[in-house]
Amino acid sequence: MIQLVLVGTGNLATHLFWAFQQSSVVQVVQVVGRRRASLKSFATHTAVTTDHTQILPADVYVLAISDNAIASVAASLPVSNAVVLHTSGSVPMEALVKHQHRGVFYPLQTFSKNKRIDFSDVPLCLEASDKKTMQVLEKLAQSISQQHYLLNSTQRGALHTAAVFVCNFVNHLYQIGFEITGENKLPFELLLPLIKETAAKVATMTPFDAQTGPAKRNDTQTIDTHRNRLQEKHHKEIYNLLTHSIYRLHQEQLNNKLG
Amino acid sequence: MIQLVLVGTGNLATHLFWAFQQSSVVQVVQVVGRRRASLKSFATHTAVTTDHTQILPADVYVLAISDNAIASVAASLPVSNAVVLHTSGSVPMEALVKHQHRGVFYPLQTFSKNKRIDFSDVPLCLEASDKKTMQVLEKLAQSISQQHYLLNSTQRGALHTAAVFVCNFVNHLYQIGFEITGENKLPFELLLPLIKETAAKVATMTPFDAQTGPAKRNDTQTIDTHRNRLQEKHHKEIYNLLTHSIYRLHQEQLNNKLG
Repeated sequence: MIQLVLVGTGNLATHLFWAFQQSSVVQVVQVVGRRRASLKSFATHTAVTTDHTQILPADVYVLAISDNAIASVAASLPVSNAVVLHTSGSVPMEALVKHQHRGVFYPLQTFSKNKRIDFSDVPLCLEASDKKTMQVLEKLAQSISQQHYLLNSTQRGALHTAAVFVCNFVNHLYQIGFEITGENKLPFELLLPLIKETAAKVATMTPFDAQTGPAKRNDTQTIDTHRNRLQEKHHKEIYNLLTHSIYRLHQEQLNNKLG
Repeated sequence: MIQLVLVGTGNLATHLFWAFQQSSVVQVVQVVGRRRASLKSFATHTAVTTDHTQILPADVYVLAISDNAIASVAASLPVSNAVVLHTSGSVPMEALVKHQHRGVFYPLQTFSKNKRIDFSDVPLCLEASDKKTMQVLEKLAQSISQQHYLLNSTQRGALHTAAVFVCNFVNHLYQIGFEITGENKLPFELLLPLIKETAAKVATMTPFDAQTGPAKRNDTQTIDTHRNRLQEKHHKEIYNLLTHSIYRLHQEQLNNKLG
C-alpha cells in the first residue's frame, strides 16, 4: 500500500480523494487543509489537520492546491525520502525543487463540485525527477486511471493552454448560447444534442473536417443576419473574431488547393 | 403514407433522406438535384431528376438546399395544394410565400458527410402557415424524431445564432486545441475526455456554474503564462477576448454578491 497525504480540500483534491479511496493500492492517511470546515467531509474517513507541523509520515505527498500556493507549501513540507507531487497543469516541476523525489500528477479534466468524475477515463500527465519517483507515479496513476502520459513541463504547459481553449472557452460559448436562448424564451436544453454531437464528432474526424456553418462557407448573408440579431456588444465581438478566424483558416486551405 | 419530394443532395438532404427511408410514414418519391453525379447515391433507392419541370406530384416538398437558393427554388416550384418546406435555421418562412401551405422543418444538429446521425435525438424546430400544414409537419417530425418544438421565425433565427456559438465556434476552439497539441507533438486524443466532459456537464448544471479555469478565478499569473506561450497572433486574440469575457461575467456576479 502506498501511504499518501493529500494537501488541499478543493474540487480536485476532493475528486482525487474519492478516486484513491476506491483504489486498493493507495491509502490516504491524512488530508491537510487550511480551514477546519473544509476538512469536515474528509474527517469521517481519514485523519485531518490544519497544522502543517502535524503532517504525518507518508510515501507520497500530493499537493492539490492552487497554483500560487504550490511553491510556498512545498517549501514548508519537511525534507524526507518521500515523493512530493503537485497536480497543476501550468506550474513547472521545479517549483518543488527542495524535494529530492518530486513529480507532477496532472489529471487533464474539468472538476466541479457535485459532479462525480469517472477517473478511469481521465488522462493523467506524469513528470518525475528520477526513475524511482516515476515508478511510484505510474503505480498511483494505474490505481485510478487507464491512461497516463509522460510529459515534460513544456508539453504539460502547452496541454494546459489547449485545455483552456477546448474546455474553459468552450464552456463560455455554451454560456452565450444559454444567454441567447434565454433572451428568446427558448429552453437551453434544445441545444444539448447539438453540443453533444459537436463534441462527439472530433473523436472520429479532425476539427478541420468537422467544421460547418456560415463562416466556413463564407455565407456573408447569414453572417450579417446573425450580426444584426446579436444584442450584446461582447457577443458581437466574439462572433466577429471567431467568424473571421474560421473564414481565414478555411479560405487559406481553399487557396492552397486552387494555387 | 406521406409522399415526399426532397430537393437537395448535400449533407442535410442526405441525412434526411436516410431518416425518412427508415420511417414507415413517409415515402421519398423523388430526389431533385442540380448535378447528375450528386444524385447517384439516391438513384438506386428512388426516382431522381435534375430537371425542375420533371418534379413529381407529392404531398410535401422539402427544400434541403443552401439558404441563398431557397427563395428562387421555391418560386420555381409549381403552385399546388402540397406543403412546401425549407430546412434552414436562418431563412424566414415567408421566403416560401408563393405557396399557400408553407412551413419550416429545421433540424438543430451539425451534419457532416460520413458521420451518421441518430435523428431520434435531433430537436426538430417547426413553423407552419396554418393548422393543417402544422399537422403534416408534426407527422413528419414524429416519423423520425422524438422531439419537436414549435418556433416562430424570430425564435428560430435566435436559435440558429446560438447554434453557431455552441457548435461552429466551439469546433473552432477544438481546432485551436488541435493546433496547439500538434505544435507540441502531443496527440489531440489527450483532449477528448475533457471535451466530452465539458459538453456533458452543461446537461446537468448551468454553463455559469460549470465554468472553471484561470479567467474565472482571475488567476493573472497563469493567464500571463498562457499568453506568453501562444505563438499564433489569432490564438492570442481569441485567448484575450474570451478570457476578458469570462472574467467580466464572473466578476460582475461577484460584485453583485458583495454589493
